[in-house]
Amino acid sequence: MASSKSYKEFEKLMKEIVILNGIGGKIMWDQETYMPKAGMETASEQMALIDSQVHKIITSRKMGRLIEELEREYKNLDEYQRANLREMKWRRERDIKVPPKLIKEMSKASVKGYEVWKKAKKRSDFSYFEPQLKKIIDLDIKYAKYIDPDRNSYEVLIEDYEPFIGIREIKKIFADLGRGIVPLLKKIEESDVDFKKDFLKRKYSKEKQFEFCKYIVREMGYDFGRGRLDETVHPFTMGISPFDVRITIEFDEHDPTKSIFSAIHEGGHGIYGQGLPKDHMFELVGLSRSLGVHESQSRLYENNIGRSKEFWEHFFPKLKKTFPKQLRRYDVEDFHKIVNEVKRTPIRIYADELTYNLHILVRFEIENEVINKKIEVREIPELWSEKMEEYLGIKPKNDREGALQDVHWSNGMGYFPTYTIGSVLAAQIFEKLRDVMHIEDKIRNGEFQGVKRWLNENIHQKGSLYETGELIKRATGKKLSAKDFLKYVKRKYGEIYGI
Amino acid sequence: MASSKSYKEFEKLMKEIVILNGIGGKIMWDQETYMPKAGMETASEQMALIDSQVHKIITSRKMGRLIEELEREYKNLDEYQRANLREMKWRRERDIKVPPKLIKEMSKASVKGYEVWKKAKKRSDFSYFEPQLKKIIDLDIKYAKYIDPDRNSYEVLIEDYEPFIGIREIKKIFADLGRGIVPLLKKIEESDVDFKKDFLKRKYSKEKQFEFCKYIVREMGYDFGRGRLDETVHPFTMGISPFDVRITIEFDEHDPTKSIFSAIHEGGHGIYGQGLPKDHMFELVGLSRSLGVHESQSRLYENNIGRSKEFWEHFFPKLKKTFPKQLRRYDVEDFHKIVNEVKRTPIRIYADELTYNLHILVRFEIENEVINKKIEVREIPELWSEKMEEYLGIKPKNDREGALQDVHWSNGMGYFPTYTIGSVLAAQIFEKLRDVMHIEDKIRNGEFQGVKRWLNENIHQKGSLYETGELIKRATGKKLSAKDFLKYVKRKYGEIYGI
Repeated sequence: MASSKSYKEFEKLMKEIVILNGIGGKIMWDQETYMPKAGMETASEQMALIDSQVHKIITSRKMGRLIEELEREYKNLDEYQRANLREMKWRRERDIKVPPKLIKEMSKASVKGYEVWKKAKKRSDFSYFEPQLKKIIDLDIKYAKYIDPDRNSYEVLIEDYEPFIGIREIKKIFADLGRGIVPLLKKIEESDVDFKKDFLKRKYSKEKQFEFCKYIVREMGYDFGRGRLDETVHPFTMGISPFDVRITIEFDEHDPTKSIFSAIHEGGHGIYGQGLPKDHMFELVGLSRSLGVHESQSRLYENNIGRSKEFWEHFFPKLKKTFPKQLRRYDVEDFHKIVNEVKRTPIRIYADELTYNLHILVRFEIENEVINKKIEVREIPELWSEKMEEYLGIKPKNDREGALQDVHWSNGMGYFPTYTIGSVLAAQIFEKLRDVMHIEDKIRNGEFQGVKRWLNENIHQKGSLYETGELIKRATGKKLSAKDFLKYVKRKYGEIYGI
Repeated sequence: MASSKSYKEFEKLMKEIVILNGIGGKIMWDQETYMPKAGMETASEQMALIDSQVHKIITSRKMGRLIEELEREYKNLDEYQRANLREMKWRRERDIKVPPKLIKEMSKASVKGYEVWKKAKKRSDFSYFEPQLKKIIDLDIKYAKYIDPDRNSYEVLIEDYEPFIGIREIKKIFADLGRGIVPLLKKIEESDVDFKKDFLKRKYSKEKQFEFCKYIVREMGYDFGRGRLDETVHPFTMGISPFDVRITIEFDEHDPTKSIFSAIHEGGHGIYGQGLPKDHMFELVGLSRSLGVHESQSRLYENNIGRSKEFWEHFFPKLKKTFPKQLRRYDVEDFHKIVNEVKRTPIRIYADELTYNLHILVRFEIENEVINKKIEVREIPELWSEKMEEYLGIKPKNDREGALQDVHWSNGMGYFPTYTIGSVLAAQIFEKLRDVMHIEDKIRNGEFQGVKRWLNENIHQKGSLYETGELIKRATGKKLSAKDFLKYVKRKYGEIYGI
């Protein structure tokens, strides 16, 4: 389709935004991997300039005029062009409503918040973090009110990470998850299945773990010609363009499952990033849909695929060959059980696949109440304890393993739900894959191309063409719900725990 | 000094330029070190955007207006502000005179030039490169004419790398070097000093070389808190800010001197970058003076200091400890001689400290004649042979070891002289250091702080405060000339070769 003059101008600005995004990604990747310590200040100045340039383009008068012009010629636009227009409008409306001064205040509060949080966590003293957290949350609320004074502010905050899914839908999912997981967890606890775990006492060289992780993600379909794998304290994936998507993993010399599962998880993110539509790489429609959708890809690979029996039927022999001494006494059954052990822990990042969402549920409910001023910030630790007791039957011993455990709130609220959206969507996609192909057989045979191809076609290649709900509907035939997740965990843990 | 409103606006734009510069540096460092292969296209788009943004700011009407306003209030500016104004004017005048279309053409011709050059070199066939080189040179000339139709175009081209030194001065330096080096070279060839070299047949592990190189540059004063050391095919230094300056080195498993001297060389660049004035890090005055001055710092450390007897009196015991078997039969005398062996070679990058400048002299004279249309591009190989014969008494066997050996011309002409300016200036600074401190004793004792401090104060901290000639005059008390270099090589090689 021939593009109008307005569209061409629009396209040019959009390309600048996307390239600046990619540059920002590179700066952040560098910061987490190889940047010299003292380079932080320079990097912050660089990021601030990139952000302000993106903001300037999006909020420019020219962009406003172009959007108006394109709306008038809407009927002449193809679906990709329309999606670009929708995404740009969405960003512009938010960016233009919020005063830059507030953004700066938020960013400052977050930098300070991070420092204060670190100290508070070290002291295990929530009251030390409280005043700064209150400030951060007040700014969050102010921000949300600028965007839409008439809507639930928490919904508005979530949208920064997960647009186009309403809070009512998310609430329903969490409620269903709570109702489904809590009784299942009780049953699991009553079972007397045994787990061998002395393999954790042995030593696993970093070099060999590294090699094995590279092997496993390559087998999954992650392309090293367009990516790389490095070590960081906190694993992450940085998509700079479909031709440059880098993953990082963590290591524990006494527990190889840390590096392995962080590799499989980030590998899933990486395959998404590498699968985005190349023909639209400099357009908003070419970017990944949302954090929730991103997380669905990593969790699909990490949990639904990567913690399946079939996966280890394929990979365990190779793992045993890599660490023959350390794993001498283990077979596939043992290993499969170990990587699926369910246990109550106060700490989210140590949680298993099943209880993980209860940890998120606790955070979701607290965020919702705080943002909507149902409780005061100082009441968080108490509410945290109550909810942990209610859902997980466990109470944090102190603030450090309670409300201070996560870094997220130092940057504001609204992020956590994306984790659970990811889990739930992953299960939904996994059920679909069971329908359309013999996914278990494929996994057992190490044939991962079919899965990747399906995901490429139905999720990755779509980029941001559809709003999240539409994307999910088209890919899985259903709307987002907790149903498939509950079905999946009942089946899975039923087998493992014999219940 | 209080800044006027105009100066503050000017400062803001200048800061953006410098930050964008740093971002570009990061992208280029990434490209040469860790970028996935397929990331090239994305990186090119990123660099193009950065360049065009810098160009946009420099050539903007706003910048023009600010420069005019600042010229009117010149007497109120302090010397740093005046230097910033001078540097900005210099850049703007060049950028504004050349049509962006020509810049794009040049950049395209250079990308293609690189590909054609690679093939031509493989085939060892200059005629295959000739049409593209002609195109590149024609564009170079066109470019120079836009900037100043009345001046020697070659001078204008050199200025892109080495502003503020006229071609007459450079010509004089080369002529003096030719006259001084050629007879010295003859005498050296007549000497019958022997060089042990079987150490090159042994193997030196990369890990140990790496360790030793890190040790040596740390001792020199390179700060790893603000830098890092990586491996690349072509060693380079990337200064992103005084707080983030990264060096890279090359390795040869059979010749540890490659990594060692690339480390010392880049370490010199790195120490310059880390020594730039932090208080002016976001100003043009805070940037390094020129390529020639940069090269003087690397060559001072690599040659004048790093190839001195005293340097190895200090470091050889440690090197021998690192490679005890391989260096069993060697002592300091042997090693010092080896790293200073003079030999005629057709290849510039294999040349020693003495003949290196004859290689540059050949290129300088050819560039001058081609740009000024005294000869045709197709005559280059013949002229190359003649001049190599004249200055080095050696003729290339073919184009590959003749006019096709260097990548530089695929990007245009004018760069080569900076190497020699670096050598000459390094010798000048070294003589000054001999005057102001017992530099040889310091080196022998491994006391490098004094040297670094002197360079910091007299060169690095000055950034771009002065034009090159003024900087050299203030630092060494003399104007740039070949005299100290000739004095230095006569003394040095006189001792080694007993002449």
